[in-house]
Amino acid sequence: MLSRIIFVAVFLMMSFHLCLAQDGQIEEVAPGIWRVHFGQTEVFTPDRFREKDICTESLAGLPEPGELPFKLEEIQCQIRQARTIVYIPCDEPEEQIYGFGLDSGAYEQKGLRKYLTVSAQSIGKTGSSHGPVPFYTSTKGYGIYVDTARVPFVHVARLSAKASISASKVNDPSSETTEIKTTVEELYAARAAEGRTEVVFDIPGAAGIDVYVFAGPEIKQAVQRYNLFSGGGVVPPLWGLGMKYRNYGGGNKDTVMEVANSLRKFGIPCDMLGLEPGWQTAAYSCSLKWSDDRFADHDAFVDKLVGMGYRVNLWEHAYIHPSSPLFEPLKDKSGDFLVWGGLVVDFVNPEAFNIFSEYHGKNFIDHNITGFKADECDREFVDNATPFNYPYCSTFGSGIDGDQMTQMYGYLYQRSILRAFKQRNLRTWSDVRATCGLSSPMPFVLYSDSYGFNEYLRQLVNSSFTGLLWSPEVREAGSLEELLNRVAMSSYAHQMCLNPWFVPNPLWTQYDRGKNERGELLDNAGQEKVADAFTRIINRRMSLIPYLYAAYYEYYLQGLPPLRALVMDFPDDKKLRRVDDAFMFGAALLVAPLKENASQRTVYLPAGCRWYDLNADIWREGGNEVQISLTPGEVPVFVKENSIVPFATPVEFVADDTVFALTVKVFGNTPVDLTLYADDGISWNFEKGEYNQIKLSWKDGKGSVQETGPYQKKRYEIISWEQK
Amino acid sequence: MLSRIIFVAVFLMMSFHLCLAQDGQIEEVAPGIWRVHFGQTEVFTPDRFREKDICTESLAGLPEPGELPFKLEEIQCQIRQARTIVYIPCDEPEEQIYGFGLDSGAYEQKGLRKYLTVSAQSIGKTGSSHGPVPFYTSTKGYGIYVDTARVPFVHVARLSAKASISASKVNDPSSETTEIKTTVEELYAARAAEGRTEVVFDIPGAAGIDVYVFAGPEIKQAVQRYNLFSGGGVVPPLWGLGMKYRNYGGGNKDTVMEVANSLRKFGIPCDMLGLEPGWQTAAYSCSLKWSDDRFADHDAFVDKLVGMGYRVNLWEHAYIHPSSPLFEPLKDKSGDFLVWGGLVVDFVNPEAFNIFSEYHGKNFIDHNITGFKADECDREFVDNATPFNYPYCSTFGSGIDGDQMTQMYGYLYQRSILRAFKQRNLRTWSDVRATCGLSSPMPFVLYSDSYGFNEYLRQLVNSSFTGLLWSPEVREAGSLEELLNRVAMSSYAHQMCLNPWFVPNPLWTQYDRGKNERGELLDNAGQEKVADAFTRIINRRMSLIPYLYAAYYEYYLQGLPPLRALVMDFPDDKKLRRVDDAFMFGAALLVAPLKENASQRTVYLPAGCRWYDLNADIWREGGNEVQISLTPGEVPVFVKENSIVPFATPVEFVADDTVFALTVKVFGNTPVDLTLYADDGISWNFEKGEYNQIKLSWKDGKGSVQETGPYQKKRYEIISWEQK
Repeated sequence: MLSRIIFVAVFLMMSFHLCLAQDGQIEEVAPGIWRVHFGQTEVFTPDRFREKDICTESLAGLPEPGELPFKLEEIQCQIRQARTIVYIPCDEPEEQIYGFGLDSGAYEQKGLRKYLTVSAQSIGKTGSSHGPVPFYTSTKGYGIYVDTARVPFVHVARLSAKASISASKVNDPSSETTEIKTTVEELYAARAAEGRTEVVFDIPGAAGIDVYVFAGPEIKQAVQRYNLFSGGGVVPPLWGLGMKYRNYGGGNKDTVMEVANSLRKFGIPCDMLGLEPGWQTAAYSCSLKWSDDRFADHDAFVDKLVGMGYRVNLWEHAYIHPSSPLFEPLKDKSGDFLVWGGLVVDFVNPEAFNIFSEYHGKNFIDHNITGFKADECDREFVDNATPFNYPYCSTFGSGIDGDQMTQMYGYLYQRSILRAFKQRNLRTWSDVRATCGLSSPMPFVLYSDSYGFNEYLRQLVNSSFTGLLWSPEVREAGSLEELLNRVAMSSYAHQMCLNPWFVPNPLWTQYDRGKNERGELLDNAGQEKVADAFTRIINRRMSLIPYLYAAYYEYYLQGLPPLRALVMDFPDDKKLRRVDDAFMFGAALLVAPLKENASQRTVYLPAGCRWYDLNADIWREGGNEVQISLTPGEVPVFVKENSIVPFATPVEFVADDTVFALTVKVFGNTPVDLTLYADDGISWNFEKGEYNQIKLSWKDGKGSVQETGPYQKKRYEIISWEQK
Repeated sequence: MLSRIIFVAVFLMMSFHLCLAQDGQIEEVAPGIWRVHFGQTEVFTPDRFREKDICTESLAGLPEPGELPFKLEEIQCQIRQARTIVYIPCDEPEEQIYGFGLDSGAYEQKGLRKYLTVSAQSIGKTGSSHGPVPFYTSTKGYGIYVDTARVPFVHVARLSAKASISASKVNDPSSETTEIKTTVEELYAARAAEGRTEVVFDIPGAAGIDVYVFAGPEIKQAVQRYNLFSGGGVVPPLWGLGMKYRNYGGGNKDTVMEVANSLRKFGIPCDMLGLEPGWQTAAYSCSLKWSDDRFADHDAFVDKLVGMGYRVNLWEHAYIHPSSPLFEPLKDKSGDFLVWGGLVVDFVNPEAFNIFSEYHGKNFIDHNITGFKADECDREFVDNATPFNYPYCSTFGSGIDGDQMTQMYGYLYQRSILRAFKQRNLRTWSDVRATCGLSSPMPFVLYSDSYGFNEYLRQLVNSSFTGLLWSPEVREAGSLEELLNRVAMSSYAHQMCLNPWFVPNPLWTQYDRGKNERGELLDNAGQEKVADAFTRIINRRMSLIPYLYAAYYEYYLQGLPPLRALVMDFPDDKKLRRVDDAFMFGAALLVAPLKENASQRTVYLPAGCRWYDLNADIWREGGNEVQISLTPGEVPVFVKENSIVPFATPVEFVADDTVFALTVKVFGNTPVDLTLYADDGISWNFEKGEYNQIKLSWKDGKGSVQETGPYQKKRYEIISWEQK
């Protein structure tokens, strides 16, 4: 590091360069978590706007922290006129790095240059995404979080410092080239960086930084610590685990009611209905005012849907149209640029935050609205001429810079909305198109307008490293096979959502977009066939709700993500390090979706145990690749040996008083216990301990149940036990 | 602008935000050019590293400056902690904006967000390119240059300031939406920014800025002023206007000699031969030392090529391999990171600059090398894991920041090389993969590894706005037709270059890459056919060398680019505002290349005059679209009515004493005079006035020639006059 300091000698007529290379102030903030502080901590960072405190108690309950592969003192920083640079050791050749948020382009991060800007569009492997997070974790068993709302460049162990070059190499003819390459690929081939490499965070605009280090011993525990540092994982409302269907953008209350009736008629399970922009008098930007034209008697209409078992979600974006009741109150509490002619809310201003929050509470949440979908809080596409974001140089009265606001706008929006729900002791399950670090406690699921199958799947896997939720919305598909595979992948995601907002008729009445638009619907038998296929897929998800809910509770209590990259659960199996198209769904299920319109795929089963193939009803050996053939819409799912998985009888929707009838399946002879969680499913009382733990055990060929806790109502009924 | 100031009120616990909104200090630096200065001028900018002084005299000779559509005082600036923001009025609905360098993705710039980073790859319409230049020009007849080596975001009249919203709109129900859109395109449709819009330059890292304003009255004159401000356009060596052929990357002196012989055998005109990385002992990074293995007796070998009429160009990149003789001397004068294990030269350090320059002079230029090709001085691809650039946070002993060095590395490299040539009173014609603003005087032509036909053509057109030269290198093609069309387009570019470096045998012996690699060559007749097609195309270029040389002289003397976007020459024809696939080649020729493998295309001929179709030998009316059908390899070219164009008998190469035999063609009855320029073609003596002007006139059915100037030798011989 010394060379960097030496070379900052001032050479020409430099007057304003502030060059400091410094050691950090190290402080242990919780067991296995350290802060390394440099310079002037920024005012506007995710940590300063955290939703919840650090879960100190839960952290104390985690396994003993593993040893770090470097000393905290080796993390170095340089603060210059217009940037802060952090250097973190990362020089083990075998080491691999994961994380950086909802990256659709890259899984293995070592050797890449990241540019962690919030963006509506992926750009190569830069990590620009709906949820860029300056957190990474290493196969050496630690995690690093850099607390910034600036847009960092991150050079992931890809650079050779000049200081690393050994003197013996200089003038050494044996290092000369003997063979000349004749392809670009060869010429540009990645050359292992020489000497001691580092992860370099280059943070323009910052004059200091807090770096947090999370101990392992493995990736899993480092991620758990990050999530508990963030305030713990979210517990969704129980109904949030069902299916969400978003309605026709050009529709009105009649088209929505048609969908609502059709879903129930066909018996397609559905918990949530989303209304698109047209519920308002104006969009883009948003009036946030019901349209009496398209949605007359909206309160009664919403109540009717609620009576049918639906929860209602409203699309919006936080750019306030001049005709909105919020315009005047927010006019002086917003940025200096407009987006689509609407105000950009200065959510850092507590008054603006409250005004926005209270408006949603009084006008919507108090009228049975249970969620929102916040669109376009990310940054616009690079080739789109429409300005749907304010510039990085925007100013806000609160003093936050435009770049920081861009990075945190979706997050601050979430906090404002969540406040209104919390004040009413209600949970929500909402959608948002952008978020930042420390989002683990937020009941908002990320989604995207882009739509590549492999990218969707990679995002699902990547989201698990950084406390993000991902909804691979089903929209268009090239064929029925692809449609069903997309629905099937969605059914194993954090949120299951069908979003055919562009077609006027329900998706199962005609899945071909053009024909749907022209009203050329399938005949009855055809509609039934599609609806049945949907129902089969969704029923599988509905049957796993108790199991998935338990996984979310582990997320809340222990920071363990409900869906996980395979490297997290099987750190010793190096073959998994490149697997970005399969994941753990809870503790027991390995899910490896069929892609595109395929009916086959290869799945590598982790070594160390057997796996029960749920589709073929057979055991398979771990440490092997298996070829799977299925019908599109089916999902290759494998149960880890010695697991207990309860399957519920599917319900059409989750009512507040739903009791799940469980068939508990036992896989293997010495299964580990599984704990289910029972609570009211809708309030925050669980945070005060109002939940029960229901431990399912299997011993000597017999299952047993042990329920503890203060919650009084019944949530589960066990029908039978089966062993595989 | 007031609102911006007001809203910067400090809100929370802000202590370090430096907020200044300020008026600029205005100074006229030359007739029709003003500097508006804000804050602290940066130390490292193109202006501080200019190659040549402002051409004050030439500027005084330009037409009277046009009136600006805004007052200079309206250009405002805000300097904040980590960025400088400049606001420039641009609020005429009819106005269109062009420029920003070698943009391959966008032509019309209004409404776009640019991110002017040097990059090996275009990213959408952001303007990231090999030559991003913070200069733009407007159809309202002015130009703006922002003198920075930082990476600016530019918001081109795309943002509505909150201050622009009119009070009457607030709570106005008539502004509400009546119809809801149901396609993403409609929802995101560009909405004309409301109120007064601006071009906003957001420059992270700067604490002040110089903005230069160039008067018109039209785009053409604004561009001329910019080029003269840059020091005037380059005059190439005469031989630089011929064809350059780059050799096989895996080859040696034998393969190069085979090409050299084959070219002459087939009579394909060629002036320059390029040697690829393997001329050295090591690449990537570069030893810059001849390989005795592949190029034994290199001096004699080069001399032999020179004797055959070739000029020799060496590939390199400015990353210094440990085995290079330059390594030790530059070790302490280079950045703190390595690229491909090589040093990044600190060209800002005068010693490093000289060491690099002198090494090239003594080792290569003194040994008959006439040019270099500097690869990879741009920034690596976003999805390429290979680090072929140092990070923005690099430090250099000179004090220049890594972002500034990245933006200027190619430019500073050019200056170092050029110095060595100038010291020897020799011109060069070299290649470089990156440059910055104020590059007009540089004899270096940009090229790219990417290869889209339309992008190539758009870059050729765009380059004309900002003093750049562009070489659309011919590499692979999907068919013989496409190959010939690519060769043909290249023949009307700033540099004509065939670069099939990946095939071991000459391109005309086999144009199919795979077959060429496998040695499956065409039969003799087939080779002749391809060679003849090449020769026909290249001969046309060779015949236009005197005309093109004159155009470069106009560039030098008047700042008028030799190739020009059509809007520059025909500002009144609004139909041309979107034409990014045709251009003026000198004053008289409109060139509209056939694209891809097409044999047809549509060409819009500017209104106001007739056009002589050189291929069909007929006059065509202006103000019309015409359908052109030709054989691939031919180029639709149209001569503006009342022009004089001399056509030379093609030579195989341009020797120092070449005398061009001219057939002067006159198009129309009252042609404007054309001035040719004669000089030694190789030295800088023309800068001391050692050149002749040869005025060609046509009156009353008779041509006349008037030669003035001190140059003693004969360069042109007029054989005949013809009138069309």
